[in-house]
Amino acid sequence: MSRAAGCPLCEGPGGSLVFECAAFRVIRANEAGFPAFYRVVWQEHVAEFSDLSPADRSVVMSAAVVVEQALREVLQPDKINLAALGNAVPHLHWHVVARYRWDERFPASVWSPVLRAPDAASLQAVEAKLEALDALISQRLRAGSGNCTGL
Amino acid sequence: MSRAAGCPLCEGPGGSLVFECAAFRVIRANEAGFPAFYRVVWQEHVAEFSDLSPADRSVVMSAAVVVEQALREVLQPDKINLAALGNAVPHLHWHVVARYRWDERFPASVWSPVLRAPDAASLQAVEAKLEALDALISQRLRAGSGNCTGL
Repeated sequence: MSRAAGCPLCEGPGGSLVFECAAFRVIRANEAGFPAFYRVVWQEHVAEFSDLSPADRSVVMSAAVVVEQALREVLQPDKINLAALGNAVPHLHWHVVARYRWDERFPASVWSPVLRAPDAASLQAVEAKLEALDALISQRLRAGSGNCTGL
Repeated sequence: MSRAAGCPLCEGPGGSLVFECAAFRVIRANEAGFPAFYRVVWQEHVAEFSDLSPADRSVVMSAAVVVEQALREVLQPDKINLAALGNAVPHLHWHVVARYRWDERFPASVWSPVLRAPDAASLQAVEAKLEALDALISQRLRAGSGNCTGL
């Protein structure tokens, strides 16, 4: 397993750990304004998606889809956002974020300037479902939906 | 083929057409400050990545990887950014963007506030390679690297 000194995703989970196997882990990030902000983090320190073999790319995207589908089922967001940027932390991680028309930056990206104060009641309603959502994601990945081996 | 009235990605190519087949097309967007900004657009009007079958997800990600690898080979960027947001245009499209330390927003996202004026000479050097880059992407996808059928 290749690790890089000083890389925050090599040196720590990077958020609240939802699921972990040999190839990847799923964390829930603590991003203000976006409670349903998950990341699928490749365990090995690779920078680019195309650094992975086709089989490994399929594993990580399957995991992202498990997260995406669980978000859609539990939270009914207006949109899912997927992104692998890694400019600040060049260790492959997929952001999987539930977006709502009422959130503080919609329809702009989560990295764009704030457009409004998010609706507090709606935000709370999302937060109230996160524990069940984490459990569903973990359960599905544990059952093999993410094609992850070597738990 | 499902099309949606008023959707800019159903009603037009959405940029300079680099390659097109039955399942997807690749366009080069005209985004100021980011000359190597490509999009892999799913031809059918679907909103979410997880709306695709596993086979179709593999097709679109293979195409994104062909674009990513060509960008890396021809441009040697500091990072590739991949994203499927679709908040403004909920028609599945993958952004594939070459990022550089000198670009106007690095290490922030291309949607984040501008941090600096991009280096003009470096920008021009990227622009000078775009025609050859388009040709390489098209050639590889035409040769089947993107697993696209029904040209």
